[in-house]
Amino acid sequence: MSLMAKDPTSKDLMSKALMSKPPKIKALALTSGEPAGIGPDIALAAWLRRKELDLPPFYLLGDRAFFAGRAKLLGLQVELADAVPEEASAAFAKALPVVATGEIATARPGQPDDTSATAALASIRQAVDHVRRGRAGAVVTNPIAKSVLYRAGFRHPGHTEFLAELAANGGRSPQPVMMLWSPALAVVPVTIHLSLREALEQLTSELIVTTARIAVADLKAHFGLARPRLAVSGLNPHAGEDGSLGSEDVDIVAPAIETLRTEGIDARGPLPADTMFHAAARHSYDCAICMYHDQALIPIKTIAFEDAVNVTLGLPFIRTSPDHGTAFDIAGTGKANPSSLAAALRLAARMATTKPS
Amino acid sequence: MSLMAKDPTSKDLMSKALMSKPPKIKALALTSGEPAGIGPDIALAAWLRRKELDLPPFYLLGDRAFFAGRAKLLGLQVELADAVPEEASAAFAKALPVVATGEIATARPGQPDDTSATAALASIRQAVDHVRRGRAGAVVTNPIAKSVLYRAGFRHPGHTEFLAELAANGGRSPQPVMMLWSPALAVVPVTIHLSLREALEQLTSELIVTTARIAVADLKAHFGLARPRLAVSGLNPHAGEDGSLGSEDVDIVAPAIETLRTEGIDARGPLPADTMFHAAARHSYDCAICMYHDQALIPIKTIAFEDAVNVTLGLPFIRTSPDHGTAFDIAGTGKANPSSLAAALRLAARMATTKPS
Repeated sequence: MSLMAKDPTSKDLMSKALMSKPPKIKALALTSGEPAGIGPDIALAAWLRRKELDLPPFYLLGDRAFFAGRAKLLGLQVELADAVPEEASAAFAKALPVVATGEIATARPGQPDDTSATAALASIRQAVDHVRRGRAGAVVTNPIAKSVLYRAGFRHPGHTEFLAELAANGGRSPQPVMMLWSPALAVVPVTIHLSLREALEQLTSELIVTTARIAVADLKAHFGLARPRLAVSGLNPHAGEDGSLGSEDVDIVAPAIETLRTEGIDARGPLPADTMFHAAARHSYDCAICMYHDQALIPIKTIAFEDAVNVTLGLPFIRTSPDHGTAFDIAGTGKANPSSLAAALRLAARMATTKPS
Repeated sequence: MSLMAKDPTSKDLMSKALMSKPPKIKALALTSGEPAGIGPDIALAAWLRRKELDLPPFYLLGDRAFFAGRAKLLGLQVELADAVPEEASAAFAKALPVVATGEIATARPGQPDDTSATAALASIRQAVDHVRRGRAGAVVTNPIAKSVLYRAGFRHPGHTEFLAELAANGGRSPQPVMMLWSPALAVVPVTIHLSLREALEQLTSELIVTTARIAVADLKAHFGLARPRLAVSGLNPHAGEDGSLGSEDVDIVAPAIETLRTEGIDARGPLPADTMFHAAARHSYDCAICMYHDQALIPIKTIAFEDAVNVTLGLPFIRTSPDHGTAFDIAGTGKANPSSLAAALRLAARMATTKPS
């Protein structure tokens, strides 16, 4: 449409476009994570550097007094404001909005205590409730310590499975799929936290197909890709060299790709994993589907160690998280680096405002 | 020593240092590789760009008429000179020295024929003979096509094992160890061309220890490292998380590292493989010892796809090769990129002139 168009319809559209602001984003719900970990540290540090890091508005879920104490310990001048989710966007420029969960936290840095599990879990539960009710744009989670939660009776294999159950809301849990995303590369491991031996046992064509379908649906819905291009790795070296280096690439991976292609999905492979990830190769696809943890995580952490973001696909809401743990050894010291959290916040906002393709 | 030193000894040393040229390197013996592959193409292209690519003197072993025909096909103006190895260094500036193997080659690009196997094997045999007799500084091998050699009765698993047998000279074969080297990262896979399942079966503490010892010996002898620092990866994700993600890191990898350390070798691990290869991590070691093919090759090919060099450690001579195959589909087209061969030639020269530490 020409800028000089005279007909009223296009003029109306133009005026509307010129007058409207950038898409208004609901504030992101950021969980506190394990109170004794670096979650609170990086949340505070990120808010202070919100302009430099180009952060979307977010609010922290937890105990304001606790966050104030951590800021004081770190020597950070952070204005904290009690808020409800709907007010957070407007408040964000001048203060870090805190939505009270009603659970107090008292843990010292590096020393989880009896309040740790309840505070961390309440923060996650309420963040999910907010996003499901449309009060928040997305959930961004700070790291938790599974061992602390287990001692308090937590029975889920991890953070992601807990989110999937909350998402189910009593119904059937969706299958969450982990994606590691960076501007240079996105990877999805089909098997994740399993020994290599166990990963070999659990790898099936069906699991590859299900995982890839979920990745494609979310790449369409939240990344603006009309027809996401998948590069599927082989399991064995050289993708098995036609079966001479292992039968799985012929028997398991290739049929999965065939199924995906018959569904109209742009999937290529099985590709030799070692030559999939250099810069020129990366330009030929949007997401790499890998067979096991290290095959996916080695390349992305090699090239994007500081700004890789963990994205959970397959949930009925957007969830990202920084790609690191609680780092108890540096909590409260000021050494924690907020860059992965910042990347997680930016990506969540981008996903929340991208129109489905 | 001060440049103004007056005592005769230091003056003599100074004069000597000022007058002597850079360490004189014997020419490198470059095999033709499979005649129908890109070996001849990249050898010719590399010689033409010898100044720009900063190449050490090398000579090609094979059939001069064949190389002349390939140069003509490619439209390359390459002066070829019949030579013996000892003359090659002096001749290199003005012509590409060719040492005749006595075997003719007639294969067309992409079409191996009956002369392919005999020509390729003669080239390798004579290159090894030259380096073992001190007539060449190192062996650099162009890619061969195993399937072509197998049809002609070749019975070795690959190029490297054939070199090891030639090195044995009738005695016991040395254990060759593959290293992939680039300026940014060096990696050694403990198991190599095996299916992932087979790699799990064959991984033992003894194999890790033997491999690491050979790596250390050659890093001392040819890379000038007095005490090479090894980073040893875990087999499982997160290096097995203390056994909760597989027992091999506790039962196999850790004891191997312990053995190496008791021998005075600077070895660390088992390290989570996904966080071993980013730029900051790489500064903490000289060589990564990895448990299987893709764990080693994914990171180096991700960051150094064009200039990774394959180095065979554990042989009684220096051998490098470009890190790619025969590429039949582009042989004779002028599309083959000589950069990995150039890196292999430069590294071989550097290894040949580095004093043992």
